Amino acid sequence: MCELHSKRDTLALRGRHIGPSCKVFFAADPVKIVRAQRQYMFDEKGERYLDCINNVAHVGHCHPEVVRAALKQMELLNTNSRFLHDNIVEYAKRLSATLPEKLSVCYFTNSGYVCSFLIAAFIAESMQSCGGQIIPPAGYFQKVAEYVHGAGGVFIADEVQVGFGRVGKHFWGFQMHGEGFVPDIVTMGKPMGNGHPMACVVTTKEIAEAFSSSGMEYFNTFGGNPVSCAVGLAVLDVIEHEDLQGNAVKVGNYLTELLNKQKAKHPLIGDIRGVGLFIGIDLVKDPQRRTPATAEAQHIPKRFFSKIFMLFCLLHYIFLDLVLEEALGAKTASVISENTPCKTEVPKEAHLELLSGDADSRESSSRKRNGACTDKHALLSKRLKT
Amino acid sequence: MCELHSKRDTLALRGRHIGPSCKVFFAADPVKIVRAQRQYMFDEKGERYLDCINNVAHVGHCHPEVVRAALKQMELLNTNSRFLHDNIVEYAKRLSATLPEKLSVCYFTNSGYVCSFLIAAFIAESMQSCGGQIIPPAGYFQKVAEYVHGAGGVFIADEVQVGFGRVGKHFWGFQMHGEGFVPDIVTMGKPMGNGHPMACVVTTKEIAEAFSSSGMEYFNTFGGNPVSCAVGLAVLDVIEHEDLQGNAVKVGNYLTELLNKQKAKHPLIGDIRGVGLFIGIDLVKDPQRRTPATAEAQHIPKRFFSKIFMLFCLLHYIFLDLVLEEALGAKTASVISENTPCKTEVPKEAHLELLSGDADSRESSSRKRNGACTDKHALLSKRLKT
Repeated sequence: MCELHSKRDTLALRGRHIGPSCKVFFAADPVKIVRAQRQYMFDEKGERYLDCINNVAHVGHCHPEVVRAALKQMELLNTNSRFLHDNIVEYAKRLSATLPEKLSVCYFTNSGYVCSFLIAAFIAESMQSCGGQIIPPAGYFQKVAEYVHGAGGVFIADEVQVGFGRVGKHFWGFQMHGEGFVPDIVTMGKPMGNGHPMACVVTTKEIAEAFSSSGMEYFNTFGGNPVSCAVGLAVLDVIEHEDLQGNAVKVGNYLTELLNKQKAKHPLIGDIRGVGLFIGIDLVKDPQRRTPATAEAQHIPKRFFSKIFMLFCLLHYIFLDLVLEEALGAKTASVISENTPCKTEVPKEAHLELLSGDADSRESSSRKRNGACTDKHALLSKRLKT
Repeated sequence: MCELHSKRDTLALRGRHIGPSCKVFFAADPVKIVRAQRQYMFDEKGERYLDCINNVAHVGHCHPEVVRAALKQMELLNTNSRFLHDNIVEYAKRLSATLPEKLSVCYFTNSGYVCSFLIAAFIAESMQSCGGQIIPPAGYFQKVAEYVHGAGGVFIADEVQVGFGRVGKHFWGFQMHGEGFVPDIVTMGKPMGNGHPMACVVTTKEIAEAFSSSGMEYFNTFGGNPVSCAVGLAVLDVIEHEDLQGNAVKVGNYLTELLNKQKAKHPLIGDIRGVGLFIGIDLVKDPQRRTPATAEAQHIPKRFFSKIFMLFCLLHYIFLDLVLEEALGAKTASVISENTPCKTEVPKEAHLELLSGDADSRESSSRKRNGACTDKHALLSKRLKT
């Protein structure tokens, strides 16, 4: 299904034509993904994987509302930001409204990488006394902020991973450090476009003026183009309409609860940390000395791989980045499996019984929305294929 | 039509929320563009402009085949390049096939800016003896190439503006320097995606290995994502199916001929230079001494602005970057004006009578394709709006 080349040929062509720095996941036995819906990805054989690593498909793979918004704008106009257009100002207004009042000036780009460079350049060129990104320990944040601001520094909140409601309780990760804490610069990346290449730096009017007067007139002409902004607006709508922030709390708490039950059983689990759908499992060889259990941490994603998929492993820290609603549910699968028979059984033998299920949550309203969402999508496809 | 905010409000919101380095065209009286089709852009009042500046809408604004390809893939899968996927290898294979054999390894990114940085980093880090971009005078190119290669340097061909058939006779701009000349690195930008944020660096296997072994493992995880590559493939298809390269020769020659007639009449025109649809008009105060007529060059785009639009002015050099088929035709306008009444008359008072028309070219096959193209587009829109 959906294949132009066999997996072997795809691999061979990749070896021939794609730069070697572009490395595949699971290099020993790379995965070929041909389609995805919501929290699932499907390989060329129709095998289904629960996607716990893809931090970009923020509101779910191929969300029909996002696709529809992109299509509508692509048909109408896609041009650079040197013309006046409503989408860029509307999106900037909507983004600003989610942030503390002083964070009101947006710089749009097509890539988080460019945003990082933009900030680095800003730091280097217009405020030479400051350092790079600062991630102080929680609790000390206020004090550090006072100190850094006192020293004429700037605070940068990297929201590429944690922004847009992923931490559940707050829309932005930095808000977890208290109401009083306001960064000077906030960076955002591809999750804001659910995969559409776009990124943004939001800062204060004061810093924007400093940036401007520094003579560094960096400007990505296609950043904030009408299509990217239409997509960004649709993502904000979906987060709101489907209460994905509330869902991150609910599913995140449920997952943390399950993981804590495992922690009670397995001394290998040193800690469960995280918030919302941004959760990590700390694996240790020795609970007292907290020796990193690196080998075990590397083993687990491989073990899960064939059945579940995509746990991200940072040395001894297993990182779960669940992008979607109801990742732990079982019944939702049936919506997807109508199209593609699901060969995946709950992996009872798995070391961490992540999918030990909760029947009560099956009839949640967000699951019903998911059903509706899939129907809408099917309709859109049908219209276009007829 | 298509407006969320009045032009005044859009301007005010832009001032409040968009970084000041993001400057608009014609800042004294910025243009608000709400839709575009093929070579035309339309403002909020329905006023139509011929787009001679937009170097990104390479196969025409909102080309339905490109939109359809993007939609089809957006509905199916859009994820990073760490998974195997056919689109990235197929597109890399197709791009390589248009280039000399040794240019076979692609690095995809979401932004030409990132490509530039990639190359700068490559030069700085893996081949420290070379300089930056080299643009030697035509004719001397071979000798310079021999010299530069002899000194251990690399040649970089920037195809962001001139690639993909824009120069007409050749698919790539560097091919104008002779069959024997093969650059070491070729960079491409957003025209390859007709505006979809994407870019690419293509190089040799040898350089890719040097890059890789330098330890600089730069990799844009979303570069070469399935949607970008589907879009890139559709653009290549359109260039081929609609013979846009042949069209660039035909329309470019026609425009150059008209401009040369003007040159005979106006000593202000020092030279007409260019190839295909990449044409510049050199304005001089004194034909002998070739003193730049800077003020006049700045005046002309303003004068054309209200009727035609978008001549790009580089000091005394007026740069015409015609993105589309039949930019000089008059009859094609009727296809567009069925939807939006065209208020624009041929500007007979214009200093350079660019639109002095050629009735014989009206029934060309590419114009007929344009008509079909617009019909198809209308159908696609209709399906989605019902």
